[in-house]
Amino acid sequence: MTTARAPLSVAAAMDRAVTLAANGPAYGPNPRVGCVILGAEGAELGEGWHRGAGTPHAEVAAIADARARGVDVRGGTAVVTLEPCAHTGRTGPCVDALTQAGIAAVTYAVADPGNASGGGATVLEERGIPATLMEHAGASALTHRWLTAMRLGRPYVIAKWAATLDGRMAAADGTSVWITGPEAREHAHGVRAEVDAIAVGTGTVLIDDPQLSARAGGEDAAHQPLRVVIGHRDTSGRRVWRDPNVLGVASHDPRDVLAALWEREVRAVVVEGGPTVLSAFLREGLVDEVHAYIAPVLLGAGPSVVDDLGIGTMKDALRGEHVNFQPLGADTLVIAHLSRGF
Amino acid sequence: MTTARAPLSVAAAMDRAVTLAANGPAYGPNPRVGCVILGAEGAELGEGWHRGAGTPHAEVAAIADARARGVDVRGGTAVVTLEPCAHTGRTGPCVDALTQAGIAAVTYAVADPGNASGGGATVLEERGIPATLMEHAGASALTHRWLTAMRLGRPYVIAKWAATLDGRMAAADGTSVWITGPEAREHAHGVRAEVDAIAVGTGTVLIDDPQLSARAGGEDAAHQPLRVVIGHRDTSGRRVWRDPNVLGVASHDPRDVLAALWEREVRAVVVEGGPTVLSAFLREGLVDEVHAYIAPVLLGAGPSVVDDLGIGTMKDALRGEHVNFQPLGADTLVIAHLSRGF
Ligand SMILES: NC(=O)c1ccc[n+]([C@@H]2O[C@H](COP(=O)([O-])OP(=O)(O)OC[C@H]3O[C@@H](n4cnc5c(N)ncnc54)[C@H](OP(=O)(O)O)[C@@H]3O)[C@@H](O)[C@H]2O)c1
Ligand SMILES: NC(=O)c1ccc[n+]([C@@H]2O[C@H](COP(=O)([O-])OP(=O)(O)OC[C@H]3O[C@@H](n4cnc5c(N)ncnc54)[C@H](OP(=O)(O)O)[C@@H]3O)[C@@H](O)[C@H]2O)c1
Repeated sequence: MTTARAPLSVAAAMDRAVTLAANGPAYGPNPRVGCVILGAEGAELGEGWHRGAGTPHAEVAAIADARARGVDVRGGTAVVTLEPCAHTGRTGPCVDALTQAGIAAVTYAVADPGNASGGGATVLEERGIPATLMEHAGASALTHRWLTAMRLGRPYVIAKWAATLDGRMAAADGTSVWITGPEAREHAHGVRAEVDAIAVGTGTVLIDDPQLSARAGGEDAAHQPLRVVIGHRDTSGRRVWRDPNVLGVASHDPRDVLAALWEREVRAVVVEGGPTVLSAFLREGLVDEVHAYIAPVLLGAGPSVVDDLGIGTMKDALRGEHVNFQPLGADTLVIAHLSRGF
Repeated sequence: MTTARAPLSVAAAMDRAVTLAANGPAYGPNPRVGCVILGAEGAELGEGWHRGAGTPHAEVAAIADARARGVDVRGGTAVVTLEPCAHTGRTGPCVDALTQAGIAAVTYAVADPGNASGGGATVLEERGIPATLMEHAGASALTHRWLTAMRLGRPYVIAKWAATLDGRMAAADGTSVWITGPEAREHAHGVRAEVDAIAVGTGTVLIDDPQLSARAGGEDAAHQPLRVVIGHRDTSGRRVWRDPNVLGVASHDPRDVLAALWEREVRAVVVEGGPTVLSAFLREGLVDEVHAYIAPVLLGAGPSVVDDLGIGTMKDALRGEHVNFQPLGADTLVIAHLSRGF
């Protein structure tokens, strides 16, 4: 409960706001945001977080929380993980809600790069409410995918695959079940449950006939991402189409795919293969993050993860940054970020 | 120092013997062995370990240690990590040394599978000295490579490579410097310093012109493994030949290479590539351990780690066991053991 707390510094309030933000869903068109409203002496007057598209923004939730406690927020400081929005989307602008509530100052951790939603700090300053940027690594991490998507005007792209030590995604006969073990597959399902869409090419649908659902502990997860099938061939009748939430994109251009997804408010997509589709996204410089599940297996034949990226010599290699590792049973997950195309 | 110790149980003495064994060199024709001699009340009478070929075996070193302390080992129990040897090699049989010293019982952790050296426990029993096997994971780990070599009658083979996430060992133009970062290279040099030989094909010598020395902190390591060049082409004039300790094997048959190394008392060899040579060893089922250094890099072209292992479908894939991981800077080392050929 939120009663009888010790006074908070603004920095401590920001830590708390980040913790609150993480309660929100990782998927969806909006970022995860948390807000704490501080009184004059550092008393915590209210707190809130955004619970997903169509629900109140964190600032509005925090004001409502204070009201529910019978607390007056006038003169208070709103400490919020993201710059308050300045536009009317599914809900009204947060800058108006803050102004009307009589908030006297705002501190935020991440600037909003959105064309429509951004600029809230300037609006607040114009209204005489100082709005201060105070960076916070936790807030950046929680909004990283969303921010990247907003800056680039396309979904954040995670390229995911399971490969052998010799970089094969399937055996010579096309079989790829199972390269990795249960721990790696479970992890991959967890990642699916945090994004808005999963995409594969028609080749994968025709050969593997995957369900492309997000499962957890054998059950379907509560949130199911949009399934996307890329390519011209007819794949109707395959298992992926049993779900109504499927999109076919009859194109070989990854930009067409991303545009179609952006229209549907997809902010993060996992491209799961096969090698043809993965290579196309990588070649176009449209991959932000790589999830390579590597099995301690050798095949010696079969399609490599990527083909023909136009790289001829070592110094031009596509090199991942901010690399992380995770042992998963006998497999290893390597996560790397790509900050440039070719 | 070895004075005024608390009495030891046989199990505790074995722990100590394993710790002593680890002082010995990992390379060389003999395994690492440690020995503790216990008196009637569990007093530690002497201890020793084998310091490498041509020096006393651990049992003899422990008896000498007791003598140097003026202690009588008669009636004592020798606790030794490996079954005492029964043959005369560079030194006399340990079973004789133990018998002559009046040792009354022997406990050992690992049976000696050597044709010549093995059978020591039986000889001791025949002489009325009970010899008991007490398994110890640490003792097994210290002798694993040597034991495997003795059982198979060929050197223990470690296949080592640096590869990209898409399994390439070089770019399309043959460049492979540097796929991995300094931490991975430093680690690989540490592995070289623990084996008797490093082998590459003529292709690697002609393209990369490597020194194939073991370095530590920029300096040449004290122990330099034998450098081995496999193939028919002339590579004289290349850097590897600057050292006198080089062996050329003009053959494409990995068995010829291993036979030539066995003759030179090589018990462990690192086969470092390139892909042609690695594939040949893997295809023949002659690899015991894989060291795959994986860089967060994509190339899309260039030779894959292995080619043509004769595997057509996923269920026939060569699957590593007892897998270990180690993050090394931005790279990951995956160590896997292979227990079968094809
Ligand atoms: N290990 C793993 O993580 C993993 C994951 C997925 C798949 N796989 C394996 O991958 C294999 C399938 O490989 P794949 O490459 O055929 O699968 P894919 O990439 O899923 O599908 C390729 C097809 O997608 C269409 N397509 C979409 N964009 C394209 C582009 N830019 N250029 C060319 N074609 C494009 C084409 O079909 P249209 O002719 O219909 O247009 C193409 O034939 C299977 O063996 C499967 O088991 C492995
Ligand atoms: N990333 C890494 O860890 C790493 C390590 C080493 C090399 N590399 C790269 O690998 C590339 C060289 O590849 P490579 O395959 O040519 O090198 P390689 O395996 O070192 O040498 C191949 C040569 O060895 C001989 N050979 C030995 N056994 C053979 C067999 N069973 N079958 C056929 N030939 C055999 C043949 O030469 P003869 O005609 O002389 O008999 C053959 O051309 C270079 O680009 C190098 O940079 C990468």
